[in-house]
Amino acid sequence: MISSEKEKISIIKIGGKLLDNPLRLKFFLDLLAQWKGKKILVHGGGSEASRFSQQLGIEPQMINGRRITSEKDIQIVTMVYAGWLNKKLVTALQMRNCNALGLSGADGNVILAEKRPVKDIDYGFVGDVKKVRADFLQLLLKQDITPVLNAITHDGKGNLLNTNADTIAAETAIAMSRFFEITLIYCFEKQGVLTDVEDENSVIPEMNKTLYQQMKETGQIHQGMLPKLHTGFDALQRGVHRVFIGNETILQGKNTLFTQLKQ
Amino acid sequence: MISSEKEKISIIKIGGKLLDNPLRLKFFLDLLAQWKGKKILVHGGGSEASRFSQQLGIEPQMINGRRITSEKDIQIVTMVYAGWLNKKLVTALQMRNCNALGLSGADGNVILAEKRPVKDIDYGFVGDVKKVRADFLQLLLKQDITPVLNAITHDGKGNLLNTNADTIAAETAIAMSRFFEITLIYCFEKQGVLTDVEDENSVIPEMNKTLYQQMKETGQIHQGMLPKLHTGFDALQRGVHRVFIGNETILQGKNTLFTQLKQ
Repeated sequence: MISSEKEKISIIKIGGKLLDNPLRLKFFLDLLAQWKGKKILVHGGGSEASRFSQQLGIEPQMINGRRITSEKDIQIVTMVYAGWLNKKLVTALQMRNCNALGLSGADGNVILAEKRPVKDIDYGFVGDVKKVRADFLQLLLKQDITPVLNAITHDGKGNLLNTNADTIAAETAIAMSRFFEITLIYCFEKQGVLTDVEDENSVIPEMNKTLYQQMKETGQIHQGMLPKLHTGFDALQRGVHRVFIGNETILQGKNTLFTQLKQ
Repeated sequence: MISSEKEKISIIKIGGKLLDNPLRLKFFLDLLAQWKGKKILVHGGGSEASRFSQQLGIEPQMINGRRITSEKDIQIVTMVYAGWLNKKLVTALQMRNCNALGLSGADGNVILAEKRPVKDIDYGFVGDVKKVRADFLQLLLKQDITPVLNAITHDGKGNLLNTNADTIAAETAIAMSRFFEITLIYCFEKQGVLTDVEDENSVIPEMNKTLYQQMKETGQIHQGMLPKLHTGFDALQRGVHRVFIGNETILQGKNTLFTQLKQ
């Protein structure tokens, strides 16, 4: 098979609760820096942005239970995601001899998004991914650089936009699968998709779309899990080789539980 | 002369008061996007970081009249310089069809610094430039990318460091002068070095080191001007082709006053 001759690269998304836990983050970064082969790291923001908003006395704006990104909010998430967290991750990887480079979607125009159109709700400065510049990411990987993508994108019209980090990971994986054999890994605080959210050992080792649909309908899947599963199955269908969901020990590659998505 | 066959590139440093002025910033960005030839933009922070610190109730720490960068301060300047201001500039240039890419010193290890050693004063998280990776900047320029460097560097040991933006511009210019014929332009709110700080027309068109020393000794030079002159003459001595000091109209290249430094 021709596709098996493509170079393998991994796209690893780190979840907010791992970012918030100094010890687990350190362990994750140690493993990531030692990880063989080319890689791209994707991160969101965790609770840091909310903490900062609170300190500044900015109340989150909600419409019908959905969070709105105001002009002040986009400034804060840009500061926290693209500023502090991104540079903290980049410098921590540099210290581990991993040549990391932080990128928002605006940098090198690497992720162009579209401001979500106003239908019933105006979400404000929220963007849906339109185009990932895989050629530019490929150029960086060739230089043995590890791109570190944050969840801020832009629309090419001067607006910075807040974008779901799971979606950024999946869309980047899809775009890169033209050139590479891609493994997409969602790293978060739990061992994988659980049948019982209270029981860490109830990990489902393999999950296909039928099982996903069934569990979604019966409300068995935790709310925070849905974007990973939705974008993960989408990625599998659109050319990504493998999709895993698990915690940081997945990067050890042995003696660990995790969930693998299967078409 | 061999050096005249080097490709010409410009390194343009934008000062804080231009960053703070929306109309002048817009004009600067219009001119920069239209600027012929490859370029690198360098920026500091302006008053945004101080405003933000105040909002968070953080008082600037001073020792013997010198500002100290505490752990909290480095977090804030990283958020403001590498986060908000850098991404605002990058997306504004992208909108103008200039393929900008924001970089702190940690990104791609492009500027390695050294935490300033403690002698009489512990300045905290302040860095002095040790090495600029000109090869990586050259690679980006070859892709028609405009690097946008902010004033945050790192020490390779996991510390982000606050660094003088004039120094970053000069050290970058010096490192790049191995490969290119470099023009270094300090763009700020005034027309150039003035003999009378109240009179915008008192611009000194040409300034050599002797005149600089004389004026420095007689206290004729404004405090804020000293880093530009100090680093500018250093750059000239260490291989940079031309150094200009002026306001944004210098990018129009005609009908404008400015100061040129001469060895």
